[in-house]
Order: sequence, then C-alpha cells, then structure tokens
Amino acid sequence: MAEFMTETTQSEQRSPAVPRPGAAGDARGGTGRPEQEQRAPDGDGTEPAEGQEALALLERTRALVDPELRAALESLPGSMRRIALYHFGWQNADGTSAAGNAGKAIRPALVLAAAEALGGPAARAAAVGAAVAVELVHNFTLLHDDVMDRDTSRRHQPTAWTVFGDTDAILAGDTLLALALRLLAEDAHPAGGPAAARLANCVVELCAGEHTDTDMEHRAPDEVTLDEVLAMAEAKTGALLGCACALGALYAGAGPEEVAALDGFGRQVGLAFQLIDDVIGIWGDPERTGKPAGADLAARKKSLPVVAALTSGTEAAAELAELYGKPYVAGDAEGIARTALAVERAGGRDWAQAEAADRMARVMQELARAVPDPEAAGGLLALAEFVTRRSS
Amino acid sequence: MAEFMTETTQSEQRSPAVPRPGAAGDARGGTGRPEQEQRAPDGDGTEPAEGQEALALLERTRALVDPELRAALESLPGSMRRIALYHFGWQNADGTSAAGNAGKAIRPALVLAAAEALGGPAARAAAVGAAVAVELVHNFTLLHDDVMDRDTSRRHQPTAWTVFGDTDAILAGDTLLALALRLLAEDAHPAGGPAAARLANCVVELCAGEHTDTDMEHRAPDEVTLDEVLAMAEAKTGALLGCACALGALYAGAGPEEVAALDGFGRQVGLAFQLIDDVIGIWGDPERTGKPAGADLAARKKSLPVVAALTSGTEAAAELAELYGKPYVAGDAEGIARTALAVERAGGRDWAQAEAADRMARVMQELARAVPDPEAAGGLLALAEFVTRRSS
Repeated sequence: MAEFMTETTQSEQRSPAVPRPGAAGDARGGTGRPEQEQRAPDGDGTEPAEGQEALALLERTRALVDPELRAALESLPGSMRRIALYHFGWQNADGTSAAGNAGKAIRPALVLAAAEALGGPAARAAAVGAAVAVELVHNFTLLHDDVMDRDTSRRHQPTAWTVFGDTDAILAGDTLLALALRLLAEDAHPAGGPAAARLANCVVELCAGEHTDTDMEHRAPDEVTLDEVLAMAEAKTGALLGCACALGALYAGAGPEEVAALDGFGRQVGLAFQLIDDVIGIWGDPERTGKPAGADLAARKKSLPVVAALTSGTEAAAELAELYGKPYVAGDAEGIARTALAVERAGGRDWAQAEAADRMARVMQELARAVPDPEAAGGLLALAEFVTRRSS
Repeated sequence: MAEFMTETTQSEQRSPAVPRPGAAGDARGGTGRPEQEQRAPDGDGTEPAEGQEALALLERTRALVDPELRAALESLPGSMRRIALYHFGWQNADGTSAAGNAGKAIRPALVLAAAEALGGPAARAAAVGAAVAVELVHNFTLLHDDVMDRDTSRRHQPTAWTVFGDTDAILAGDTLLALALRLLAEDAHPAGGPAAARLANCVVELCAGEHTDTDMEHRAPDEVTLDEVLAMAEAKTGALLGCACALGALYAGAGPEEVAALDGFGRQVGLAFQLIDDVIGIWGDPERTGKPAGADLAARKKSLPVVAALTSGTEAAAELAELYGKPYVAGDAEGIARTALAVERAGGRDWAQAEAADRMARVMQELARAVPDPEAAGGLLALAEFVTRRSS
C-alpha cells in the first residue's frame, strides 16, 4: 500500500524532509516555488546523526529479521515459495538466487524499536517473529495491490503478477497473510495471541482502506470529502505502521494505554508521510522524484491537497473542479501548472503542510505518552523522522 | 474450492451415493452403464435414517453458527460488509435483505460434530467460534477462486466479482480470511491459539492446492502424474475438511493423536468425495447433474479417472491421450462417448471407484481411531456419508 519503504532506495531517502514540526517556514507555503527549493540540500543534511541512527536501525533490523523471514518462506510449498522468494528479491523468476532487495524493513524496524523502547533488548529479541509477521503482511498487501492496480514494477523488478500471472500472485499474497498469522498464533510468547488478533484486525482495516482508495478513483471529484480521504490514508498507510508499533509494545508486556499510544504514534507517522508524499506528488522536482512534474495532477489523483482545495469553497476550488473534470491531455504542461496553481490558491498546499506539521506534533505527543524517557524513545523518533523526511 | 456443499441443494444431495465401502459391486465398474443405473433411486433411499441425521445436524449447525457468523460479518467496515453479506446471500447487490443461501455448512457441522464426539455438548458449544472461522475460510477460498476461475455463478446468484469487480472480491476474500483468524486468535479458550495456527497452516495448503490445480490446466496431459492429482485433491478439498475436524477435536481438549486421526478422517472424506465427483463428471446423468454429458471431458479436465487412465500404460491410454490432445468440438457427442469409453477401457473408472471405496475404508479407520465409541462417532459418520453420497 504505502510505497515509501519499497520503491525508493536508501540514498534517495537520506535527504532532509519537509514539513517538520518546528520548521514553521515550511508550512507557510504559497510562494509558488518548487518544494525542493525550501528544503535543505541532499546528502547528510541538517541532522546527520538522526538519519544515520535510522539507517543503522534498519540495517540491524534486516540482520535480525531476514534469517527468520527466509526460513518462514522456505517452509512454504514449492510453488508458493518460488513466487514469494521472487517477490522478496531473493530469487530470479527462473529460480536462481538473486542478491535481494526486500525493501527497507521500516515496519519490522518499528516493531523492534517499540519492543526495545518499552522492554529493552530481551523484548526486542522476543519480537523478531512479530517483525517478520508484519513484514509478511505488508508484502501480502503489495502482491494483491499490484494485481488490483495493474502495477508492473516493484523494487526495480517486474511485479509478481506480470511474471507468474494474476492467479499465482493472488495465491502468494493469501499465503503470506496466512503465514504471518500462523507465525504469531504459534508463538509460545504470551503476546503471540493478542498480536495475531491485532494484526488480523489491522488487515481488515487495510482492505477497507484499499477499497476506499480504488472506489474513490471512480467517483467525481465533488463526491469525495476530506474526512474520507484522511480516513482512507489512515487505514491504508497508518494502520500497519500503528500495528507494527503496537505489536512491539505487546511483546514488551506493555499495558493497554502504552499499546494504544504507540499505535497512535505509528498512525500519525503514516498520515504525516502521506501528506508530505501528496505535496511532493504535485510540487516535487521531477529530477528528484523521477516522475513528470505534477504527475498526480495529470492522473487526476484525489490526493489530500487536491481534496482540501476542492472542498475549500473558494473561487479557485471551482476552477480546480472544472480543470479536474476534464481528462488530462498528454504534454499539456500549462494545464498542469494552472491546476497546481489552483490547488495552491484554494489553500490545498498550505493545508497539507500545516496538517503534516500537526501530525508530526501528534507523533511526538503519542511517543512521549508511551515512552516518557527520551533516550528510550530515540529509535522510534529516528524512524519517524526517516519516514517523513524525503525528497522524492 | 470443493463445491459440494454450495452449488447443490439439499434435495439434490439426499439420494444415495456411489461408491461406498461394502458396496463392492459399485467398484467393479466396467459395464459401460451410466453411473446412475447402478445407484439406488432418488429420494429417501436405502438408509433414510442416516441421511436424516446429517440433515438434522446441518440444520442445527446453521442455527448455532449463523448468528455468530452474521455478527462477525456485521462487525466489518461498511464496504467489505456489503460484499460479504451479498456473497453469503443475506443481502442483495443493492444492500436490501435477502433470504440467504449461505451453503450447507458441512465444514462447520464437522467442527461441531468432532467437538461433540470427543467432548460432549460443552465442547460443541465452545467450538461455535471455530465453526464460524472455518466457514469464513471456506468462503474466502470461494471468493478468490471465483475471481481466478472466472466463474460467474455461485449458490444460484452471480458471483461477487461479477457484481462488485475483481478488486473488491479479492479484498472481501482477504477480509474474510483475516476475520476468521482474528476470531480464533481472540478466543479466550485454550484451543484458540492452536486452532488459529492450524487453520492458518491449512490456508497455506489450500493455496498450494489451488495453484497446482490451475497450473495443471496449462500442462499437457502426459505431464501430469496421478500422485500429483491426488495430492492436489487432498490439498484443495481434503485439507479444510480435515482441519475442520481437527479444530473440533482441539476444542474438546483432545490429544495430538486424536486430533491427527480426525484430521485424517476429514481428508479421506474429501478425497472420497473428489473421486466420486470426478466419476459423476464423466458418467453422470445430465438430467441429474444439470451439466451436459461428459462436461469434464469436453473441458479436457485432468480429473482423477482421466489421469489414472492416461498413466495406465494401456492401448486405450494412448487413444485417450490422442483424443485429449485435440480441443473439443462443440456438439461432438460421439467424440465425448469415445473419450469416456477410452477412460473406462484404460481402467480409469474402475480405479476411481476402487480408490473411493478404499478412501471410505480409511475414513472408517480414522474415525474408529479417534472416536472408538460408535454412538459418539455417529454424527461424524453421518456427515461423511452425506458428503460422499450424491447423484449430481
């Protein structure tokens, strides 16, 4: 579903982000300048230590999670094993070994960081299976979403359905979902059962979010409300990040309040990410996003800034509605520029940036509620900033 | 996957079956007479009491399971709830109420019968949630299989994907799977966790079976072995019946041996059913099956009797391979008759009937191993006979 940990490479994500809490200048917007100009330059920017901490956490996560993840995949019947290993980048389509590009492991890293923040190294060690389960569920959604969205590329290789067909990609997704819940249900740790129930419930939410997302594509722009898009983004992107953190808390033996706070923390991280991603989808620098300028506008995507603009009741909203009512004509750069300006004049950009800053403030609140000790909270904070700090 | 409890109506299934253990005459075959002529007539045939017992068990199962099943579906987010209620026949496509035709509930009946056989009424009451979970998993497979097989009709109504589209049918299937495993993981009963793990593992097997089934369709007849088709039938049809019985045993607090024996019982019931179903698919009376004569042969289906024939090394096997190598020409009744005769002359029909009788013998053995008291085993036996006793 959310693709921030899968499609981009680490170096693409190392640059500092907009907007962030405290960086009020970023949220003012309305200058018409490309988003990138407001950002610090690429590379080891303003806070190298934090970026490095997240990268180190992700690397450690892969080292802990990959052996168990691979063992779980190797336990599958041959046909499904082959598709799964291909999807994770560990095998080529012909079954030969591949170097592997199984994604950044943000979600398993959140599981382990949450467990460690509340229960130290022992909890982190106990939570590795839960981290594997969350990663399996994430990949179940990717396999099915790629079929449903007809996406042909994932992690720099052809998607599973393009190689093995729809049927096998659907079955492989089903298999990963069942495997994930089996791992938790089999876990002798007292958190295993509650974690399985919570992850299964999260899958129900993920599916509802994906339904809303595809459904909204077929509706007229004025038939979509801002609350609906926010709820969809929370279900599709926030829910699994929240669940990852909650599972880590469960494995640390945390109480319901801490579990809920960490769930909220992850959800707000997901929403902040989505808001920023949507801003970049309109005003991002094509050279850095790798997509044509205003790609989301050309696709008439009902992203958060667009729906905020459309529902603003302004004159620019009416203009935007008219522009969005007509299909995009290939190469019409002027039309895209007018559309972007209409979103901006209707307040869509300002709203999205302020909302992202607000979500990041809530991220901090939830984190402080769950993990009062700033040192213990460091890993989770670093991961939150890593997810929301991107330039492409 | 297996459709014996969903597509046919109760009255269609009340007639006595072939082949059954002890009914050696059925297994001799080779007479060329239509299968139906060897059977007892329709209606309340040779053993009315047993058929009645199974029907009473199924009715009681629906009464126990449906309220919890509906409550579970009602707990889903609106979009998925709507598709699920439609699929179960409780709502029309427009969201209005419908009388409902949620299938025969064979699998939940097996859960409850197994629990009662080993643990009495208390175990049966405790196992209702597990019965719901098994029914949800069965319906998850139906939703996805209908998408993958492009089947347009299910339980006398258009399939979900034809009404709501592929995406929503896939998502609704995912949702039912997650819901099923959530119900078990949330269950405070000590069997909840082991049952969730076992059911999740069964889903992995179901998916592998479905993969093999669709994969075999694309292979040449001489590239399919009999062991492969038997393994596929066990995975696709036997695994969930076995799991249903095993879950009932778990909720009765049974030990590993009894659980394994009941799993084996259910698997052998599934295989016996599949063998009989495949015989009917070739030699069944069109007036009673509702399908054209030899429909499976026209579709060049690699059913168990056909593969047994093809791999028999006989002269008729070579003839059959040649006939199967060419596509069916619509209306070629003579070609179908020749093909059916080739399967029979190559021993495919004899083999399938003997094999079905052998499976039914194993059904009895496994049942006696798990439930030595014949009176306690009565419900499970009645259900096994109900499943394998059909005429269409």
